[in-house]
Amino acid sequence: MLIQRMSETQCRRVLEKATLGRLACARENQPYVVPTYFAFDGTSVYGFSTFGQKISWMRANPRVCLEIDEHISHDQWLSVVVTGHYEELRDMPAYTAARHHAHKMLQQRPMWWEPGATPAAHQNNVDPFLPIYYRIRIDEITGLCATPDA
Amino acid sequence: MLIQRMSETQCRRVLEKATLGRLACARENQPYVVPTYFAFDGTSVYGFSTFGQKISWMRANPRVCLEIDEHISHDQWLSVVVTGHYEELRDMPAYTAARHHAHKMLQQRPMWWEPGATPAAHQNNVDPFLPIYYRIRIDEITGLCATPDA
Repeated sequence: MLIQRMSETQCRRVLEKATLGRLACARENQPYVVPTYFAFDGTSVYGFSTFGQKISWMRANPRVCLEIDEHISHDQWLSVVVTGHYEELRDMPAYTAARHHAHKMLQQRPMWWEPGATPAAHQNNVDPFLPIYYRIRIDEITGLCATPDA
Repeated sequence: MLIQRMSETQCRRVLEKATLGRLACARENQPYVVPTYFAFDGTSVYGFSTFGQKISWMRANPRVCLEIDEHISHDQWLSVVVTGHYEELRDMPAYTAARHHAHKMLQQRPMWWEPGATPAAHQNNVDPFLPIYYRIRIDEITGLCATPDA
């Protein structure tokens, strides 16, 4: 197995293709990571959720890390790690265009609504169905890619 | 789609079966998440790595989060989230038994060595092949499970 660092262009191609990643946030240095559907428009990552621990923590500390991987076999896999900042696209005029853009990007994924919307139904939340759109402004993208020995 | 909280027993069954998860650590409230192979002995999670960012950060801040998920379809999936503390099984007499136990647990996975060992070869590390065993002492396990509507 040969493991190589991926170029930023290669990493961005993975992000463009992927729809499911694992999004990590942190509070008082306790990390928290959950699976998340997302869309990438070439500049930022867009996501959707209802209110819960993830949103609460990202509001308090916008530093996040998104990880995407593909595993074909033990010696053929790739992993891309994005660090960035959470920015909530709030329901106010300043964010109207960004929210429309996020909605357009995200709805290209079949059934995109369900995973983001439903977990909140299990939390004691005053407004469990209020949609929350956010974007992740990317600070750095790195990736590793493994290929079998020739 | 019906989403339900999983019992701790159900979550532990997922941990016992799984070999690949995503492990998050944090430094100065910046989370970092990477794919990780692991083994669970019913009490703690065991992992193996060579030195790199993940180990460096977990040594500085032992608070970690391990996420395991299975996706059969958009309406059939599960996600288990473990929060816990990193404990390095150092190469010293006090840890000899624990290191043997970790090795025994981890080697039950075919090709277990490679993913943990190889990324360090891409880092400017003084001792890139020194094996580092660790265990994660579990503080909490939670899980969500989605099933299609009847």
